[in-house]
Amino acid sequence: MTTARKLHRIEGEFMMQNGSIMDPVIAYETWGNLNFLKDNAVLLFTGLSPSAHAASSTLDQSNGWWEQMLGKGKPIDTDTYFVICINSLGSCFGSTGPTSTNPATGIRYGIDFPVVTIEDIAASGQAVIEAFGIKHLYAVIGSSMGAMTALAHTVLYPHVAKGLVSISGNGRSEPFSIAIRSLQREIIRSDPEWKNGLYNTSPVMGMRLARKLGMLSYRSATEFKQRFGRERVPEERQTGDSFDIDFEVESYLDAHAKKFTGTFDANCYLYLSRAMDLFDIADHGGSVVKALSKVGAQRVMIIGVETDLLFPLHQQEELVEGLSTAGREVHFHRLSSLQGHDAFLVDMDQFRPLICDFFNCTMNQPGQLHSI
Amino acid sequence: MTTARKLHRIEGEFMMQNGSIMDPVIAYETWGNLNFLKDNAVLLFTGLSPSAHAASSTLDQSNGWWEQMLGKGKPIDTDTYFVICINSLGSCFGSTGPTSTNPATGIRYGIDFPVVTIEDIAASGQAVIEAFGIKHLYAVIGSSMGAMTALAHTVLYPHVAKGLVSISGNGRSEPFSIAIRSLQREIIRSDPEWKNGLYNTSPVMGMRLARKLGMLSYRSATEFKQRFGRERVPEERQTGDSFDIDFEVESYLDAHAKKFTGTFDANCYLYLSRAMDLFDIADHGGSVVKALSKVGAQRVMIIGVETDLLFPLHQQEELVEGLSTAGREVHFHRLSSLQGHDAFLVDMDQFRPLICDFFNCTMNQPGQLHSI
Repeated sequence: MTTARKLHRIEGEFMMQNGSIMDPVIAYETWGNLNFLKDNAVLLFTGLSPSAHAASSTLDQSNGWWEQMLGKGKPIDTDTYFVICINSLGSCFGSTGPTSTNPATGIRYGIDFPVVTIEDIAASGQAVIEAFGIKHLYAVIGSSMGAMTALAHTVLYPHVAKGLVSISGNGRSEPFSIAIRSLQREIIRSDPEWKNGLYNTSPVMGMRLARKLGMLSYRSATEFKQRFGRERVPEERQTGDSFDIDFEVESYLDAHAKKFTGTFDANCYLYLSRAMDLFDIADHGGSVVKALSKVGAQRVMIIGVETDLLFPLHQQEELVEGLSTAGREVHFHRLSSLQGHDAFLVDMDQFRPLICDFFNCTMNQPGQLHSI
Repeated sequence: MTTARKLHRIEGEFMMQNGSIMDPVIAYETWGNLNFLKDNAVLLFTGLSPSAHAASSTLDQSNGWWEQMLGKGKPIDTDTYFVICINSLGSCFGSTGPTSTNPATGIRYGIDFPVVTIEDIAASGQAVIEAFGIKHLYAVIGSSMGAMTALAHTVLYPHVAKGLVSISGNGRSEPFSIAIRSLQREIIRSDPEWKNGLYNTSPVMGMRLARKLGMLSYRSATEFKQRFGRERVPEERQTGDSFDIDFEVESYLDAHAKKFTGTFDANCYLYLSRAMDLFDIADHGGSVVKALSKVGAQRVMIIGVETDLLFPLHQQEELVEGLSTAGREVHFHRLSSLQGHDAFLVDMDQFRPLICDFFNCTMNQPGQLHSI
């Protein structure tokens, strides 16, 4: 993958949750400097599809997927914090996953890669910070799948992170989101080009259709209504085929889906998608409430979005209730963004001040700019 | 199709909205008797996939898709009303559609069938009642796509229906539901077995995947959570393939999808799905409000369901507002059913008394049974 050479990596023996012993590479990027006390580190886990390139850095000056949130003078100010973002185990941007060579066979793992769990990804993040000699994190943070991973991390390693930021996350997958992801995976696996995971060229059609279904679950009907209404694509872009793209909303989904299919590996998608279904924090204690009582972080921020179909607000409320009961200091924000599950990537005006507040940033708040 | 021989049919020249002249067969079923004044008829339009077999009848004693709502002593009491349900033009249960033989070529139409609109389906229903010499309907009624059709009917033929019942319907498709249906169609068209509509055996895989996406849009996340939680299928039904069915919700969707693929033709699905996208009542007057002022029915019942993702409640509210402004007597019911868009097929306890009330039925109401 193109960004891999720009990444730092660690390697080392690692036992996965299903018992497999691996020797994986974990790719990561960092921003800022680790201080002498090694107490200013922030560990950032990603959603399903991003790489470790969360923001531009000296290694890679291109914009990252959370460019507005991370950097000098930004909400997570890298003049203050040493931020580490890892590429999830099982992904395809430098970390070991289904696209890597299986040392036992000398060929690509494909679907012979062991089952990946959210706990495995959390453990691989822990391995990275241990390689830095970091014993305590200022916070562990993540959004979507990354929020699941951050939660798993603070339960598995309760003495490490002092803070937890969970954005549009949950403690376990519910059947509606499982059903959506299961259908995405079946669409990919039904593409004849998938070839039971042994493709040489990507199953582009399956990936494109799965991504479109993803987009439907990541955004909201209200946003679509406001953005697209019943607008048709201009005549010069119509093909005359009555089943081809006609409405602007169809064109939008098509453009996004085509962009995605070139960047993400199909088998990696299957593995990480499945990891989200399998995750249930209740596995760590017998119930959600008991598991949440094991969260090590004392200061917690939970953010949820009212229009999120995939990680609905009652799931963030479940975390807030459990963590409050367990005596943690919980800051809960329910946002009215229209952008659904994707809001944390888009609606910066609502997210920026909250992240800034948690990380005590000194940037001007929108309200302060106009104060008299 | 198996039920076609049990249906009544009309034939006759017919100009479709796109200008094509056809000589279609319109299949229908009836229940009850048309009275001497011919003023007790009810015209029922269906959703996308049902046949005209709404309830058991002397012609076909098997249960119909709205068995509990239609018949002797039922909410639409066939001792009082003469009910006609038509199989939509473009469908595959006896009416002319893509599976019919194109007289110009001697072979199946496939995707050479003209574009079908909701207005065409409404017109074909009108042709059926005219064949009976019916000038006035007690009511026109429909759910989902059938509700769109019923609305189109009372706008196109304002002097015919005295009443309108619109269940989980709308005045036009919004981009989120267009996007879902567009993706369903693309999934079907991407199945190599579809062969540009010239398949000999059904594109089963595409139909199954499209149906699963349909199920996700027809039900609700809350219902799935209550019914399935994170239940796994028993070990004896697991295949060991980690991407195969594991959760009960996946098994449920798979069973429903397999059932559907045997009964509905893929090209018919494409045509009727597209008809829903194209429908915009505003085409009849320049705006939704102006179009609704042309509704002929004076007495209207609108029913919507809070958990409906595909025809969300604000769409029924739009109808209620427009029709109230236009001076119609509007009865609006917003139901809290968990079954989403499918509630009218499932949550009979909530729908039965409303339909009964509109049709002045004499059946015992649940409340009355226990009155003191």
